[in-house]
Amino acid sequence: MEKDSDHQRHLLFTPGPLTTSSQVKREMLIDCGSREPRFIDLVRHIRDDLLQIAGVSKSAGYEAVPMQGSGTFAVESAIGSLIPRNGKLLVIVNGAYGRRMVQIAERLGIAVTSLDFEETQIPAPDVIEAALDQDQSVTHVAVVHCETTTGILNPVEIIAGIVSRRQKILLVDAMSSFGGIPINLAHTGIDVLISSANKCLESVPGFAFVLTRRDLLEGARGNARSVSLDLVAQWDALEKDGQFRFTPPTHAILAFRQALVELHEEGGVDARYQRYRDNHDALVRGMKELGFESLLSPEQSSPVITTFLEPSEETFDFTALYEHLAAHDLIIYPGKLSETPSFRIGTIGRINPDDIRRLLDAIRAFVIVA
Amino acid sequence: MEKDSDHQRHLLFTPGPLTTSSQVKREMLIDCGSREPRFIDLVRHIRDDLLQIAGVSKSAGYEAVPMQGSGTFAVESAIGSLIPRNGKLLVIVNGAYGRRMVQIAERLGIAVTSLDFEETQIPAPDVIEAALDQDQSVTHVAVVHCETTTGILNPVEIIAGIVSRRQKILLVDAMSSFGGIPINLAHTGIDVLISSANKCLESVPGFAFVLTRRDLLEGARGNARSVSLDLVAQWDALEKDGQFRFTPPTHAILAFRQALVELHEEGGVDARYQRYRDNHDALVRGMKELGFESLLSPEQSSPVITTFLEPSEETFDFTALYEHLAAHDLIIYPGKLSETPSFRIGTIGRINPDDIRRLLDAIRAFVIVA
Repeated sequence: MEKDSDHQRHLLFTPGPLTTSSQVKREMLIDCGSREPRFIDLVRHIRDDLLQIAGVSKSAGYEAVPMQGSGTFAVESAIGSLIPRNGKLLVIVNGAYGRRMVQIAERLGIAVTSLDFEETQIPAPDVIEAALDQDQSVTHVAVVHCETTTGILNPVEIIAGIVSRRQKILLVDAMSSFGGIPINLAHTGIDVLISSANKCLESVPGFAFVLTRRDLLEGARGNARSVSLDLVAQWDALEKDGQFRFTPPTHAILAFRQALVELHEEGGVDARYQRYRDNHDALVRGMKELGFESLLSPEQSSPVITTFLEPSEETFDFTALYEHLAAHDLIIYPGKLSETPSFRIGTIGRINPDDIRRLLDAIRAFVIVA
Repeated sequence: MEKDSDHQRHLLFTPGPLTTSSQVKREMLIDCGSREPRFIDLVRHIRDDLLQIAGVSKSAGYEAVPMQGSGTFAVESAIGSLIPRNGKLLVIVNGAYGRRMVQIAERLGIAVTSLDFEETQIPAPDVIEAALDQDQSVTHVAVVHCETTTGILNPVEIIAGIVSRRQKILLVDAMSSFGGIPINLAHTGIDVLISSANKCLESVPGFAFVLTRRDLLEGARGNARSVSLDLVAQWDALEKDGQFRFTPPTHAILAFRQALVELHEEGGVDARYQRYRDNHDALVRGMKELGFESLLSPEQSSPVITTFLEPSEETFDFTALYEHLAAHDLIIYPGKLSETPSFRIGTIGRINPDDIRRLLDAIRAFVIVA
């Protein structure tokens, strides 16, 4: 991949906002009216492209609905719009983002139950099966694909099989995986997938999106608990005249089109997945040489973000490491584990193994001095 | 004001997204981590600056809380977070944005009543007084400052006096006025003001904000009907560690800082108001010469956006005018009146009377040919 000048300046090893290409950012140098025909065309193109990345299409009965705000706004939009008044949600939880879905349902007055696993534990299929067989009132199941709390990758394909065999609806929070880890909605039977512009699709933050079976939108009229986050009304408006109901983040959407072009130029999701794997492998190997242990085993790990345990030496100071790296324009991420002191390094965004080596060199310089 | 190269290319005569300066857009060429200390400093600076523009400060007991999404997201966030379970909202309505506040309250299950006026009618103070005196159960009143439905400017100072004398709380949707029309929260007694980055503050869309008395936030814990749009939780997070709860639109926020710099360089809100007035006056005068009548009288009109009645000639075709102007990179706006055929031209954003003359020349060329 061609290196761009921004790359030399400031690299984000975070789960997003993350490093984007110079050209993605340069697309934002134009003010485009939200009702201009070219903008409307662009939104339609983006919606079609998102479905294609998920292995589906409008003609196959799927819809892509963008929603302003962060990824959580789109998650709340899906939960609050698609689950009927008499529905019940089961959330499979092994991290902060699973817990957040429980909180959203509770806040919206939706019946919800959670199936909790350790943060370092992959949800066990037999436990999920037993929970669903025990509580027949559950209508919807939600799970996070890649829990950025730890970086663990949950087996959404297996979970989708369990859920669809029981005729329940599965919502997958694929915030930090979609575009970087292959997911085919039709093959897996995932009914609803939520993700964001500023993760593996490598664009800037400002909106997120919901990919869903059209019949679920059609059957959800009148469910929404919010005006702003009404997914069905947003879809209706986009279908009617191609426009968002309320002011869209026009510049972020212009950037996103370019980000999708770059995804295709790279070779699609498979090629991007391989680059992220290479980043992750180079990082874990290099960090191990420097004495940093990963929280998760290789089988549990996603290539998205990696949690490292803080060394037991009393001299280790994460803030000092962060500041040392930031002084070199390399930004890493604090930990989010409930208990163990840890920190995280993201390997998604417009970065490659050369950038990982630059990061490792800077960490090595810190470790030697400290 | 210095002309920038973007100006020559594409001008938006719309109520937002609108024309921003080149430098505002160029600030978005950097990927900044949302947890970087410099970003956290920037958010704090922006929050303080917004209060200062409203004539108040943290030490005077006010808070500025940014919220991701469009302006409507922030309006819903304020209504859904600040009005208690046993509260009742009266909305003064003379356009689509007033009606939208009624819809939001209804959707959230908040008791609401509306006081409806014609779209071309300024709400009458004595009618508002009578309504409040008749329904003592009302706890909160909401009104739009500049209704972009028509461009009418509602007398928020007078309304604030009426509301505060009755110890009710006033929420003002100042979406398309704040930063372009002087408003002092302390002097007027407005309790809550909602506005957006991409209106008179002349930045790009991606977030909006709520300016409010701190005691209202403190008294509102547990009210929020949403996780994403929980204004109090957002405020708590910003106070605790300076961070948004969920991914902020980092690039839009970088742009916004520059937009605030440019507001101060221009001479603040008073100078900007004068430029918008000059734009508006030049537009109305020029359009009148071309045979286009304004919907509103001069006393009713804001300098923000102007509604023109479609000429009665059967030959007039708004779409043809729109396309003619768009071919010259001049973007105008369709009408939003419930009944009368009309169109709108915005006079806010990084445009000045020279740009208005460029627009008028292009309209003249269309009228002569047609």
